[in-house]
Amino acid sequence: MREGERARLYNPCIPMKAYVYVALKKTVLDPQGKTIHGALKKMGHNAIADVRQGKYFELTLNGGLDKAAAQQEVERIARDVLTNPVIEEFSYRLED
Amino acid sequence: MREGERARLYNPCIPMKAYVYVALKKTVLDPQGKTIHGALKKMGHNAIADVRQGKYFELTLNGGLDKAAAQQEVERIARDVLTNPVIEEFSYRLED
Repeated sequence: MREGERARLYNPCIPMKAYVYVALKKTVLDPQGKTIHGALKKMGHNAIADVRQGKYFELTLNGGLDKAAAQQEVERIARDVLTNPVIEEFSYRLED
Repeated sequence: MREGERARLYNPCIPMKAYVYVALKKTVLDPQGKTIHGALKKMGHNAIADVRQGKYFELTLNGGLDKAAAQQEVERIARDVLTNPVIEEFSYRLED
């Protein structure tokens, strides 16, 4: 292990960030998006063909986690807590 | 202009997509994020130091817009409609 990697693993001052994006499945109707789309059209923004709305979460992780563990933890949280698997799907990315 | 570019500019079958991310400014308290953080801690997810929640919008643009015009239009919509400039900030990316 190089010195830099060791520092990243154990230095609690460098927290990793995870961004989780949750959206309705493509097959699920999105009335909120439709409403925004209607409002945009009324306001003269005619270049927009469709709008869909989702949520996103910015998770700051404690230091001391390696990338694989962080990935596993974030994926578990996204799947079990942040997403309703019946109608929603998620994606995420890690950043350090 | 090459043939491929012309096709992209005028082909309404290849819509561009824009992703707009809206989040509370860092200086603004996020009680919803705090609640999620509390719930995660109670469920045993102790690796998380902080949670902030935001919204995201997936805009499908009509074909026939070049990249600069699309960027201008998306930025205007994000600034004037999707974001409350007093407490929120936005970022976006275009994808074709």
